[in-house]
Amino acid sequence: MLFQVEMDVHLPHDMPAERADELKRVEKARCQQLMRDGTWRHLWRIAGRYANVSVFDVTSHDALHEILTSLPLFPFMTMKVTALCRHPSSIRDDDR
Amino acid sequence: MLFQVEMDVHLPHDMPAERADELKRVEKARCQQLMRDGTWRHLWRIAGRYANVSVFDVTSHDALHEILTSLPLFPFMTMKVTALCRHPSSIRDDDR
Amino acid sequence: MLFQVEMDVHLPHDMPAERADELKRVEKARCQQLMRDGTWRHLWRIAGRYANVSVFDVTSHDALHEILTSLPLFPFMTMKVTALCRHPSSIRDDDR
Amino acid sequence: MLFQVEMDVHLPHDMPAERADELKRVEKARCQQLMRDGTWRHLWRIAGRYANVSVFDVTSHDALHEILTSLPLFPFMTMKVTALCRHPSSIRDDDR
Amino acid sequence: MLFQVEMDVHLPHDMPAERADELKRVEKARCQQLMRDGTWRHLWRIAGRYANVSVFDVTSHDALHEILTSLPLFPFMTMKVTALCRHPSSIRDDDR
Amino acid sequence: MLFQVEMDVHLPHDMPAERADELKRVEKARCQQLMRDGTWRHLWRIAGRYANVSVFDVTSHDALHEILTSLPLFPFMTMKVTALCRHPSSIRDDDR
Amino acid sequence: MLFQVEMDVHLPHDMPAERADELKRVEKARCQQLMRDGTWRHLWRIAGRYANVSVFDVTSHDALHEILTSLPLFPFMTMKVTALCRHPSSIRDDDR
Amino acid sequence: MLFQVEMDVHLPHDMPAERADELKRVEKARCQQLMRDGTWRHLWRIAGRYANVSVFDVTSHDALHEILTSLPLFPFMTMKVTALCRHPSSIRDDDR
Amino acid sequence: MLFQVEMDVHLPHDMPAERADELKRVEKARCQQLMRDGTWRHLWRIAGRYANVSVFDVTSHDALHEILTSLPLFPFMTMKVTALCRHPSSIRDDDR
Amino acid sequence: MLFQVEMDVHLPHDMPAERADELKRVEKARCQQLMRDGTWRHLWRIAGRYANVSVFDVTSHDALHEILTSLPLFPFMTMKVTALCRHPSSIRDDDR
Repeated sequence: MLFQVEMDVHLPHDMPAERADELKRVEKARCQQLMRDGTWRHLWRIAGRYANVSVFDVTSHDALHEILTSLPLFPFMTMKVTALCRHPSSIRDDDR
Repeated sequence: MLFQVEMDVHLPHDMPAERADELKRVEKARCQQLMRDGTWRHLWRIAGRYANVSVFDVTSHDALHEILTSLPLFPFMTMKVTALCRHPSSIRDDDR
Repeated sequence: MLFQVEMDVHLPHDMPAERADELKRVEKARCQQLMRDGTWRHLWRIAGRYANVSVFDVTSHDALHEILTSLPLFPFMTMKVTALCRHPSSIRDDDR
Repeated sequence: MLFQVEMDVHLPHDMPAERADELKRVEKARCQQLMRDGTWRHLWRIAGRYANVSVFDVTSHDALHEILTSLPLFPFMTMKVTALCRHPSSIRDDDR
Repeated sequence: MLFQVEMDVHLPHDMPAERADELKRVEKARCQQLMRDGTWRHLWRIAGRYANVSVFDVTSHDALHEILTSLPLFPFMTMKVTALCRHPSSIRDDDR
Repeated sequence: MLFQVEMDVHLPHDMPAERADELKRVEKARCQQLMRDGTWRHLWRIAGRYANVSVFDVTSHDALHEILTSLPLFPFMTMKVTALCRHPSSIRDDDR
Repeated sequence: MLFQVEMDVHLPHDMPAERADELKRVEKARCQQLMRDGTWRHLWRIAGRYANVSVFDVTSHDALHEILTSLPLFPFMTMKVTALCRHPSSIRDDDR
Repeated sequence: MLFQVEMDVHLPHDMPAERADELKRVEKARCQQLMRDGTWRHLWRIAGRYANVSVFDVTSHDALHEILTSLPLFPFMTMKVTALCRHPSSIRDDDR
Repeated sequence: MLFQVEMDVHLPHDMPAERADELKRVEKARCQQLMRDGTWRHLWRIAGRYANVSVFDVTSHDALHEILTSLPLFPFMTMKVTALCRHPSSIRDDDR
Repeated sequence: MLFQVEMDVHLPHDMPAERADELKRVEKARCQQLMRDGTWRHLWRIAGRYANVSVFDVTSHDALHEILTSLPLFPFMTMKVTALCRHPSSIRDDDR
């Protein structure tokens, strides 16, 4: 099932640069692994904000929660989660 | 370039059913044409709301505006438009 | 999977009483059928508002959308949908 | 009487991990005790947020306040409290 | 138990004056009956708004809901309900 | 004249417990003195929040401002002030 | 005592022009009478909105409420009322 | 030309008292100088908040910006700026 | 002096098409006249909304108010007015 | 293509003055370079706020994101990005 998740990242100003870079490195690795699995289906950057819009394809709510809350940047993010359905007008087969 | 557009539809309660059905029919036809063109890239229904989350791939802002405002349901919709970029972590080639 | 859904009902002031009563009658019948199926798990009235807080147990997002949008009162309701997971501290077996 | 309580947890970024873990440990113990008493009736996690939706069954407002404000995580939580009633359509006996 | 209820009244502009006056008349009678019962404990007008702040003393949430939703002006009111407790600093015996 | 004042208290997490307790002690003493004077007429705790709803009976706006801003907890509080009038339906003599 | 009152006017689109003009005429007459009395102290138009910012000098909350709610345009206005005090830095004698 | 400016002051809790007092002292001196010039026309305290409502009479937007941003407390203030016009109903000559 | 004005247009659904077209025709003529005068400096459409962002260059607040409120579409618009200054970093001479 | 970007700057109170000045210096240099390139088309200060309204002319969303997020002050700014189109009524050739 599909979820849209909008993530806004707010790193504390006084976080040492190395720590921030390390967090971003492991976040990116984790994210790309999830994209390879097909779980993290879509990931776009929102222009002008340290934020993204994503679409997740998960088997359960628990799975979604586990993925999101285990992201390295989770403690520094606010998330808006929206449950999606296939749209009756959609002609894209894989947009179930 | 990609835009996310969230559309909420509010049809007046006193609109005759035939008119509403006709609007929805031509809206669906228009939408599917745009999806076939590749312009209306993604279209998902938001669970529990007469609303959708879409991703448009357009050549210019004017093109986006022309498409959105010419939708049959436009007068009855509120829209939230968000400019998207390719995300540096994304591994999907076509999610430019 | 579980969803919390908060529903606020706004019937137009000028709706004839008979129509409103009929809508409420079929809404109640539909609701109780869904409760018997175990789909509409919990239903509480919010004190002081023509609104309720409900918990739905559905098999998919599409199923949830189908149920909510087919409710007789749907055109007169605003809905807030929240995806729920089992809480790691919960001791209620059936609160999955 | 029943109350819905939505709790959002915001632990300071600079809180030592041990202190956070200890707070969560005693919070969980306290919560499960209250669930065994039947006071903390329902507890669900909100997918994608360090937050929960709960239903409390208490004898008085003072009792509710005492329970909520004595939770170990209370100083780090924002709470939205909603008074619930039995819904005239509900068929669940114990959802009074 | 005590509840604060803030009520904002919005009568439709096109409601005939006689109907509005009749509604206000029966609302006032109902309100004063409830005040005599001790149920509608406090009632103040908010300066500059067709709105009031009230404190109700009721035996249950259902009782509160029954009282509020049976007010003649209920269909034209938005209500904000807040559960109150005795304050540990209060020295007023009857402000339980 | 009467004012409703809603006060939300936010003590910094890193405030030493002794300082917080001392602040609360002097706040309580000050509050009870004002209640004895009849100035701080009503004081209720909002269930589930470190907040209260109060009704003040003061001789002037300046007096209200002086009382509120001189409360020991004032620097840690956000306040919403609403001017009240006697309600034409009220039957409580002293709710002027 | 002084109050700031911000008034936004929303006349229904389908109100006959003559009625609107008559309302505005009697509103202006009433307003200017109150200004002559010194009650309506200041009245400024908000640039770009059918709205004003005013300062009233009244003897009581009831008086303020009576004045505001008896304005001919009151049913078509939303009002924000703010209690003012003399500012300790002010050097204008009459800005008490 | 006239501007209404609403200023809310939020001094950090951990600011040393001497620094806060010094800031307030120079703020007051600056403010009173501007009031003597006729630039800072009106200044009222909002009852119950460390905030004020002011009316400025300036020759240009740049002048307003220069005045506001050079206030000693500016870094600790949030400001809401509203352009005012003479109201057609106003009878106060100097309320241009 | 410069003002940014954001205008959102909401024409009633039941307005006859001819009336709407006539309103738009005279609005366009009025707008272009003001642009020729240099008063309406910039006018951009907001993509996806029946709304625009404009920059006005006016001699006074009254002038701005007169222009905006005399626009044919004014009764159907909500406006957000922001006073602008020349930015110290700007290198565009005419962006005063 | 054109974007309106509203930028609000919030520098931490405890940032050393030299660091703040250096940030502002390099921000100004960067900004003026972009204005010379024609990318940063318009830049106005919002009166009374440490904020600006700008119009950017960029070749792509990625370009816009790159410019905005590489601004020295970006970590201390909140940004609102709005996609603009040429307005059908505009007579300014270069306001495409």
